Amino acid sequence: MTTYSIDVTLSQTKKEKPQSDQLQFGKVFTDHMFIMDYTEGQGWHDARIVPYQPITLDPASMIFHYGQSVFEGLKAYVTKKEQVLLFRPDENFKRLNKSNDRLCIPHVDENLALEALKQLIKIDREWIPTAEGTSLYIRPFVIATEPYLGVAPSDRYQFIIILSPVGSYYKEGIAPVKIAVESEFVRAVAGGTGTAKTGGNYASSLKAQQLSDSKGYSQVLWLDGVERKYIEEVGSMNIFFKIDGEVVTPSVNGSILEGITRKSIIELLKHWDMPVTERRISMEEIKQAYSEGKLEEAFGTGTAAVISPIGELFWNNEKMVINDGNTGEVSQKLYDTLTGIQNGTVEDPFGWAVEVE
Amino acid sequence: MTTYSIDVTLSQTKKEKPQSDQLQFGKVFTDHMFIMDYTEGQGWHDARIVPYQPITLDPASMIFHYGQSVFEGLKAYVTKKEQVLLFRPDENFKRLNKSNDRLCIPHVDENLALEALKQLIKIDREWIPTAEGTSLYIRPFVIATEPYLGVAPSDRYQFIIILSPVGSYYKEGIAPVKIAVESEFVRAVAGGTGTAKTGGNYASSLKAQQLSDSKGYSQVLWLDGVERKYIEEVGSMNIFFKIDGEVVTPSVNGSILEGITRKSIIELLKHWDMPVTERRISMEEIKQAYSEGKLEEAFGTGTAAVISPIGELFWNNEKMVINDGNTGEVSQKLYDTLTGIQNGTVEDPFGWAVEVE
Ligand SMILES: Cc1ncc(COP(=O)(O)O)c(C=O)c1O
Ligand SMILES: Cc1ncc(COP(=O)(O)O)c(C=O)c1O
Repeated sequence: MTTYSIDVTLSQTKKEKPQSDQLQFGKVFTDHMFIMDYTEGQGWHDARIVPYQPITLDPASMIFHYGQSVFEGLKAYVTKKEQVLLFRPDENFKRLNKSNDRLCIPHVDENLALEALKQLIKIDREWIPTAEGTSLYIRPFVIATEPYLGVAPSDRYQFIIILSPVGSYYKEGIAPVKIAVESEFVRAVAGGTGTAKTGGNYASSLKAQQLSDSKGYSQVLWLDGVERKYIEEVGSMNIFFKIDGEVVTPSVNGSILEGITRKSIIELLKHWDMPVTERRISMEEIKQAYSEGKLEEAFGTGTAAVISPIGELFWNNEKMVINDGNTGEVSQKLYDTLTGIQNGTVEDPFGWAVEVE
Repeated sequence: MTTYSIDVTLSQTKKEKPQSDQLQFGKVFTDHMFIMDYTEGQGWHDARIVPYQPITLDPASMIFHYGQSVFEGLKAYVTKKEQVLLFRPDENFKRLNKSNDRLCIPHVDENLALEALKQLIKIDREWIPTAEGTSLYIRPFVIATEPYLGVAPSDRYQFIIILSPVGSYYKEGIAPVKIAVESEFVRAVAGGTGTAKTGGNYASSLKAQQLSDSKGYSQVLWLDGVERKYIEEVGSMNIFFKIDGEVVTPSVNGSILEGITRKSIIELLKHWDMPVTERRISMEEIKQAYSEGKLEEAFGTGTAAVISPIGELFWNNEKMVINDGNTGEVSQKLYDTLTGIQNGTVEDPFGWAVEVE
């Protein structure tokens, strides 16, 4: 096993921790952060854990102008036995490097990143909330820091990890949401950056989200940018349907993000011997299944909510109410199993939960 | 006339200025910068000119994660009579607000922005280089600064203007470049952010640019993301062709950026009574015109190069050499006229040049 040299500077003061029942998402951060610098010719260097602190950058730094950035999102949980668990963190760092490829950012050593994350979590261990449904949200990210206004890959980067204690996504148990199908705006198109976790995809999504909020929908369902027919994702989650007993999800097509929750669900369903298929799915097909009474369940999947059941789908001036607006059986079972594996209350036959010793 | 209150703090020290013949693009910045803050509920406030200095932001600031940002680019020139001229700066601030709309960023007062820019330039007047072809590049930009990891519009922003003395784009006179048509990657698609000047579009373009560099081409020609047939832009410039005596350029279609140079060229050609048309143009049509000997000129247009003649176009394993690889007559005339209006050596019948008194 390689040992990595990570310099540690502890904070002199400790911030006050929020109450478990008052946690929001991504607003409060722990006492420390991890940083590492990249300089062309030298590679990644100066891996260090330091007190949580502002970043100071030249106003010409490329991140402010040309959006060269990638990020990840995962969570840590404390079990009843006081173990700290991460959920498939290797998948996140693998995806970070896939995003890096698309954005012309140099690879990060995935083992070093995981080791750094574990050390950081150990130092800020007391920040992991313990109440039901709470967790420590982890945000690794890379930003281009060279002060240069030319449109070109930066010759300097920072890789940073920050941690935020977050509340339960569902205050009163898992609950279905209303979704509007987006017909004007497009999230991503093949040949673009849709398969990467990069800032521009999220900036681009804000307008559609804002409009759908104002109409009372909680997320938008994105269609493909070419034919505007095929289903891509929902908000920043992947999407699944249960149609006539079969679970289906859009296949990886060059424009959707390959979610780790998505991947885990496909593996779980196969493990349970339940039919699951990755393929192209049109809105027309969903409507057809709906009118034949075969659209049994629909749900979004992602790190934040794990499973987000869809109770209502609005498309072409028509409203489809799915499973009477209730959480479906498969949705609930997937939610219980995945969150159980994540927080250590359900047996993990896959080795997905990784302990931070 | 409204007067705006802009607080000024002058720098105690002055940086050394680079020699006129050693200027690069966007690497050296002047002694001062303009900043203004936005806070939800309060609007834009604290407009100020301060010494050029780093920006200090919480690592959770949205610009580092979700790419919510816009920018502009324009130039100031010193005339032989020691006047300082800007080229259509009102158009840049108008476009900034169009970009802001798309990115859910609050509008900036365009008059205040222009006034701030003029004051800033007056303070850093000595930084405007005077040698032939040199200018002061101006970069206004807005970044989302709220420290929050939710995917939503920020409730805080900074609007900043920085200035950089830049060398002539052409060291040895205007010279044609080789361009490869991009068939794998896509810059933008209707419904996306292509019409806005936002970081994500440029981050997304890096990969294609890197690959085309490695093959010896200086820029890529972007095709539409839907049919991959129609011409969009070239690098970060708009594109024009002269075919059988008529000048044509792709029409504004929801995915190209509406360049101010593009607009000025259309107006100039009309003023000269030369036929110019905005319409959809396929690569097939260009090839056809080429093989019939009717493809007379091709050029990119943008603030950086003004006119960038295309000497060679590579598509589907075929090379098209345009005008024997030389700068065309219309390209040259447009370049001479536009740069002449910009630096005050050619009469300006349009009122495009705006003096900084
Ligand atoms: C656009 C998008 N799609 C899907 C997902 C789901 O991915 P994961 O399951 O890895 O969290 C995310 C991230 O959470 C996302 O940002
Ligand atoms: C993508 C893109 N297209 C075209 C242009 C040309 O615009 P302008 O003529 O306003 O500089 C620019 C900016 O320079 C650009 O970034």
